[in-house]
Amino acid sequence: MQKDEVLKIRHILETELKSGEITLHPSEIAAFLKYLYSENKEEFFAILRKLPEEVLGEVLLELPESIKDEAIEQLSVKKLAKAVEELDSDDAVDLVKDIEDIDSDLEQKVLQNIDKEYKEEIETLSSYDESTAGAYMQTEVFKAYVDEKVKDAIERLRKLKAEGEVSNIHQVYVVDKDEKLKAIIPLEDLILYDFNAKFADIIHEKKYEPITVHVNEPVAELIKKFEDYDLAVVAVVDDEGRLLGRITSDDVIDLIEEQATEQIYNLAGLEEEAEEEEDIKEVTKKRAWWLLINLGTAILASFVIGLFDETIQKYVALAVLMPIVASMGGNAGTQTLTVVVRKLALGEIDWQNAKKALMKETVVSLLNGLIFAVIMGAIAWIWFGNHLLGVVIALAMIINLLAAGFFGAVIPLFLKKVGQDPAVGSSVLLTTVTDVVGFFAFLGLAKVMLVH
Amino acid sequence: MQKDEVLKIRHILETELKSGEITLHPSEIAAFLKYLYSENKEEFFAILRKLPEEVLGEVLLELPESIKDEAIEQLSVKKLAKAVEELDSDDAVDLVKDIEDIDSDLEQKVLQNIDKEYKEEIETLSSYDESTAGAYMQTEVFKAYVDEKVKDAIERLRKLKAEGEVSNIHQVYVVDKDEKLKAIIPLEDLILYDFNAKFADIIHEKKYEPITVHVNEPVAELIKKFEDYDLAVVAVVDDEGRLLGRITSDDVIDLIEEQATEQIYNLAGLEEEAEEEEDIKEVTKKRAWWLLINLGTAILASFVIGLFDETIQKYVALAVLMPIVASMGGNAGTQTLTVVVRKLALGEIDWQNAKKALMKETVVSLLNGLIFAVIMGAIAWIWFGNHLLGVVIALAMIINLLAAGFFGAVIPLFLKKVGQDPAVGSSVLLTTVTDVVGFFAFLGLAKVMLVH
Repeated sequence: MQKDEVLKIRHILETELKSGEITLHPSEIAAFLKYLYSENKEEFFAILRKLPEEVLGEVLLELPESIKDEAIEQLSVKKLAKAVEELDSDDAVDLVKDIEDIDSDLEQKVLQNIDKEYKEEIETLSSYDESTAGAYMQTEVFKAYVDEKVKDAIERLRKLKAEGEVSNIHQVYVVDKDEKLKAIIPLEDLILYDFNAKFADIIHEKKYEPITVHVNEPVAELIKKFEDYDLAVVAVVDDEGRLLGRITSDDVIDLIEEQATEQIYNLAGLEEEAEEEEDIKEVTKKRAWWLLINLGTAILASFVIGLFDETIQKYVALAVLMPIVASMGGNAGTQTLTVVVRKLALGEIDWQNAKKALMKETVVSLLNGLIFAVIMGAIAWIWFGNHLLGVVIALAMIINLLAAGFFGAVIPLFLKKVGQDPAVGSSVLLTTVTDVVGFFAFLGLAKVMLVH
Repeated sequence: MQKDEVLKIRHILETELKSGEITLHPSEIAAFLKYLYSENKEEFFAILRKLPEEVLGEVLLELPESIKDEAIEQLSVKKLAKAVEELDSDDAVDLVKDIEDIDSDLEQKVLQNIDKEYKEEIETLSSYDESTAGAYMQTEVFKAYVDEKVKDAIERLRKLKAEGEVSNIHQVYVVDKDEKLKAIIPLEDLILYDFNAKFADIIHEKKYEPITVHVNEPVAELIKKFEDYDLAVVAVVDDEGRLLGRITSDDVIDLIEEQATEQIYNLAGLEEEAEEEEDIKEVTKKRAWWLLINLGTAILASFVIGLFDETIQKYVALAVLMPIVASMGGNAGTQTLTVVVRKLALGEIDWQNAKKALMKETVVSLLNGLIFAVIMGAIAWIWFGNHLLGVVIALAMIINLLAAGFFGAVIPLFLKKVGQDPAVGSSVLLTTVTDVVGFFAFLGLAKVMLVH
C-alpha cells in the first residue's frame, strides 16, 4: 500500500469512526490495518476495537492469517459474536472456523452468544465437507412462492433488504410449497412483467429452468459448472430438489485460486494446508516427508551409478558428464508432466484425446532428445577429445528424453485413471525414471562402448 | 461425456434443430459436438451447419482449439459473420481473433459482412492490449441518464431486452450528459424506489459510488479488484471517467485460470501460448530454448565436478553420492521457490513482510538440511564404511540446503523487485545455484577432508 493511500484511508476512517457510518470497503480497512500492524501495533488494536460490528467481521476475514489470529485474540467474546452475526452465513462459517482454529473453547463461547437460530444454521453449514459445494454456500437467498404475486414478493424483498437480511440479489428463486426449486428469474426480467401477475404464470418459460448444484457435489464440478455456463451465482439443492442456498462467483473465484495453488504446490512437493501454518516446525516436518521420499529415489539413482564404479574409475569424464544426462531428462520430463497435469485439471485432456496427447508429448520430447544429442555429443567430443564419448552421451540423451516425454505424460494420466490427483507425487515418480534411465543408459553404454 | 448424456443431448438437439428453438446451453451442444467429432466427423459437420446463428458463435467458442479451427474452416463467410453479430462484443472479438488466427483474409471477409457499426466496435475492442482490462470488456451495458425517470429507464430496458441488445443486467449504470459514470445502482435497489423518481434523486447515496477499472488497467489489478471487493461485474471507464463497458465475473474467472496456468508453466520452463499450438515443431522449438539454457547450467555444474576429477578417481564413492546432494538441494529449493512465487502472485508476500518470509524459508530449509545431514551421513558411513565420508556428505547437505532455502526465496523476490515475473527463469537460476553449491561443497570438502 502506498503512503499517500494510507494517509487518505486513515483520514476517511477517522472521520467515519466518529460518525459511526462506515462507507470504506472492508478490504480497504483491512489493507490499512495490515499496514498499521507493522508500523504501530498499539494503534492497530485501538482502531480494531473501535470498528463497528457491521464491518468488523468482514475486515477480520480480509486480514492475513497471522494478523487475523492476533486480532481475534484481542477482541471480546461479545464483540466477536456480534461480528459473526452481522456476516452472511458463508462468511460467518469462515470466521467461526478461524476462531476454532485458534481456540475451540473461544469458539464455543462465541457460538453461545449468537442468536440460537443463526447458531444452528452456522453449525449445519460447518458440517459440510470442504471438498463439496455445501461448504461454500450461503443460506441468504430471496425466495418467492409459485402462487405469490410479483408485487407481494417485491414488497417482501423491500422489508428483507431494510432489515439487512439479504443483499446481492440478482435473481428470484421461485419455490413450491415443499420448498422445491421451480424456476430462477433474473430481476432484469422480473421488473418487465406485470407486477400483478403470479409467479405461476411466468415460470413456465424454458429460460427460467434452474441451473443448480447438489449440496454434496464436488468442488471441481462446481467450478466446471460455473465455467461452462458462465454463471455469476448458482442455486444449491438437496436430493429432493429443495432450495438450500446459493454460491456466488466471489466464492468460486477464491476456490479456483485455491485449487491452482494446490496444483502448483503439489507439483513441487508441498502441501497447501501446511504452508498456511505459521509454525516453522510444522512446515519443516511436512516438507521433510517429501524430501525423504526424494532421498529414497536419489539413493536408488546412486545404486545405479554404483553398478558402474569401475567404469567411472577408468573414465572419470563419465562422472563429470553424467549429471547432464539426468538433468536434461528431468527438465524435459517436467515440461511434459506440467502440461499434462494442468490440461487434465482444465479438462483439455480427457480419455478421448489422451492417446493423442501422449503421442504428441513423446514426439516433442524425442525431437528435443535428437537436438540435444547432437549438441551435447559435439560438446563432449571436443571437451574430452573422444568421439566415442560423444556418441555415448548422444545416445543416452535420446533414450532419456524419450523416456522423459513418455513417462512425463503417462504418470499423470495413470494417476488420474486410478482416481488419484495427477499432481501429487507425479514429479518424484518422474525424477526416479529420468535419473535411473539417464544414469543407466549413459554409464551402461559407456561400459559397453568405451571399456571393451 | 457419458454415453447416456450424449444420447440425451442428441435427442433434445435433434428435436430443437427441427423446431428451431434451441434451449440447450451452448456448452452442452459443444460437449456433444466434441464427442461427435471423434466418433463421426461427417455428422459433426452436418449438425454444425444446421445450428442456428443465435447459438453458433457461442458453441464455436466453447469448442477445443483444434476442433474449433476445423469447424470455422467448414463454415461460410455469411454464416460466420452472422454468428459474430449474434455474440456479445467481448465474445465477438474472441471469435474474430480465432478466425484471424486461421486466415486473416477470411477475417477481413467476415468483418465486411458485419453491420458497420458493430464492425467498428469489434475493431476498437480488438485494439486493446491483451494484458489490459480493455481487452476483456463488453460494450453491452444498460445505461440510464441522471435526469431520466426510473420508469422511463425501465421502459427502455424492456425494449433493449426484447431486441436482444442487452442481457445479464444486474446493475444500472447512471451517466451524465457527457457519458461520465456517476453511480451504479443494483436492480434489487432500483425496484424498491418510486418509479416516478429521477435518478438524480437516488444517486447521492454513498453505496452507489461506482467501483471501476480503467480501460488500460493491467489484468492483475483487475483480478485483484474483483477479489478484494467480491465483485460480480465491474464498470470500465476512460481517463475522463466516461463509461466504456463492463467486465463480468465469467471473464475474470477465465483470466484467473489463465494466469494460474501461466505461473505453473513458467515454473516448468514452458510458454503458455506455445503450448496452445497444435504444431509439434513449434512446441518443440519453444521447449528447446528452455532446455538449452538448462544445458548451459548443467555444463557449468559439470565444470565444477571437473575441478575435482582426481579426487573422484581416488574415491569413486564420491561420484556415486554426489547427485544426492545436488538433488536434495534442488528439491528443497524448488519447494521454497514455489511457495514464494505463488504467495507473491496472491499478494500474500509483499515488501512489508518479504524479510520475514525470507527468514522463514531459510530456516525451514536449514532445519531440513540438519535432518538430512544426519540421515544421509549415517547412510554414507554404513554404505561405504567410512565415517569421514559421512561427515563430508552431512556438511555438504547442510550447506546446500541452506543455499537452497535462501536463494529459493531471494531469486523470486529479486525478480519481482526489478519488475520481472518471479515465475519466469527462476527455477533455472535456482538449479544452477543448488547444483554448483552442491557439487562444490561436497567434492571440495571431500578433497580437503579425505585426500589430505
